[in-house]
Amino acid sequence: MDKKITIKDIAKKAGVSTSTVSRVLNDTLPVKKETKEIIIKTIKELNYYPDSLARSLRMGSTKTIGIIIPDISNPFFSMLVKGSEDYLREQNYSTIICNSDNKKEDEKIVKLLLEKKVDAILYAGIGNLEKFKKIKTPIIYIDRIEKNSNSSYIVSNNYQGMTTLLDYLLKNNHKTYIFISGDENIFSASERLRAFTDFSKKHKIKNQIIQADYTFQSGIRIAEKIQTIPDAIVCSNDLMAYGIIQGLKNRKINVPKDVSVTGYDDILFSAMFNPPLTTIKQPIYQMGRTASEIVIQILQKKVKENPIKMFKNELILRNSVLKRK
Amino acid sequence: MDKKITIKDIAKKAGVSTSTVSRVLNDTLPVKKETKEIIIKTIKELNYYPDSLARSLRMGSTKTIGIIIPDISNPFFSMLVKGSEDYLREQNYSTIICNSDNKKEDEKIVKLLLEKKVDAILYAGIGNLEKFKKIKTPIIYIDRIEKNSNSSYIVSNNYQGMTTLLDYLLKNNHKTYIFISGDENIFSASERLRAFTDFSKKHKIKNQIIQADYTFQSGIRIAEKIQTIPDAIVCSNDLMAYGIIQGLKNRKINVPKDVSVTGYDDILFSAMFNPPLTTIKQPIYQMGRTASEIVIQILQKKVKENPIKMFKNELILRNSVLKRK
Repeated sequence: MDKKITIKDIAKKAGVSTSTVSRVLNDTLPVKKETKEIIIKTIKELNYYPDSLARSLRMGSTKTIGIIIPDISNPFFSMLVKGSEDYLREQNYSTIICNSDNKKEDEKIVKLLLEKKVDAILYAGIGNLEKFKKIKTPIIYIDRIEKNSNSSYIVSNNYQGMTTLLDYLLKNNHKTYIFISGDENIFSASERLRAFTDFSKKHKIKNQIIQADYTFQSGIRIAEKIQTIPDAIVCSNDLMAYGIIQGLKNRKINVPKDVSVTGYDDILFSAMFNPPLTTIKQPIYQMGRTASEIVIQILQKKVKENPIKMFKNELILRNSVLKRK
Repeated sequence: MDKKITIKDIAKKAGVSTSTVSRVLNDTLPVKKETKEIIIKTIKELNYYPDSLARSLRMGSTKTIGIIIPDISNPFFSMLVKGSEDYLREQNYSTIICNSDNKKEDEKIVKLLLEKKVDAILYAGIGNLEKFKKIKTPIIYIDRIEKNSNSSYIVSNNYQGMTTLLDYLLKNNHKTYIFISGDENIFSASERLRAFTDFSKKHKIKNQIIQADYTFQSGIRIAEKIQTIPDAIVCSNDLMAYGIIQGLKNRKINVPKDVSVTGYDDILFSAMFNPPLTTIKQPIYQMGRTASEIVIQILQKKVKENPIKMFKNELILRNSVLKRK
């Protein structure tokens, strides 16, 4: 492979200095018309793509939005991205997606996106962006509340959703529970856990909490280790519920006959799962789309304060819960 | 919101010309040490992020790889991205993902990634990149063969996989077939269709081909319209098979008792589906990972020719096919 074309190659071929090429690219200082034409011709000949910096310096906008998600293999996040992108496309914006893979590389990724001169960042990651508080590029938080900043956020009411689900299980005579939690540093996971802790206290229910990481694989791993099977295994998201059900199947334990299992999110596949999953539906696509609507309003300076939006969640009854007598 | 910091703001605040700031950023021509220090201090104060251009001009590398996929909501592609990213992370590369949403905006996205100065592009899109043939940035094709270019590609043997599946159906006495095809412009879809056409001819089987678009929704739509139920509905990917089964369920048609349904890909959820899906397994994660291994070899100039790699596919027997007598 040949090496990448740089500004130096263009300068050399056009017989000018690199700062003259830079002047043309950045449109900073005047350059003689003839020289400019030679440089532009050379740029075309060498297939050099003038990049976003040059344009952003002139325009103050790249019409590009960055989206950061923590786990691309979780259909919750692909649906979220789809909602965001659909609206951004309509507005003629491009989207760059970065997947932090739960690795808390979020700071590094935010820096990368800032370097790539995105106009704004939609952030559904799990890290702490405290150090970016002062930057001018808007950061909109998705799936988490940012109380200590002036940022916009889009979230759904996780506490209310989980409480509704638990009340339903109690009404159907579930007396013993295991709660499979996501990483407590994740806002949604900590809210769902808080709902479970309050529920246990209120109804004096003996409970057990097992820490997992929102992945299918963590569900399987845990299901293989559970010793005393409770009336209900309440999972903090659908993917872990799938894993739990799969792991229990491997042990010939039947859901819901031997134990009820519930999820959270209502991702695309939950209705088609065996058994179909009783879960809490978040308006995932709409959350992504709303985040984009807000970001465009901010960029177009159509809002004075930073908008925030909280969606309601809804209990979806399917067949993974037994109506116990 | 304040407007974005530009090179002009820095120049103004530091009391220098923009070209002096540019010299410091791009490291092209010498600048007095005191002036340089003032400019760097100003850049820090204003939270200006020197971008990738400056660095790429100096280094010829941004350590960033772009990945283009056509549908982020298809778990096939999230698994592919995961395989690619895992290896790139180990090699200390960042990844930017762009989702073309089957809209054939691929040319626009390639341009965007070139502007963002990625070192290479992993391309799993469905467009035609003929016009980028001469660019220096390597483009590696995933999930398709590029016969008319010198590019590297990673693919699996779709023709062999589909033929194996069809032979299995025939052996189990399936006599009438409907084939649900993906968009024929997609390499994998056209290969799977070719296998079905050859199979029909060879065994003198009356067949019907219905055009769909690889999505779950297209499967549902088609299932609602099928008039004469055949022995087998062969789907060109798993997502459409899910849709077909869901659509048939809505019509109280049972899979596999009334009709066998098969998929292709073996995405994460296919084993847990109701009924578990008989399908062809592609080594999706490994395909993504191999693409990244090849791209790094190319960037490190460790290969002379452009490597290509074809993976085998494997028949996975589950319960969506009836063993007909």
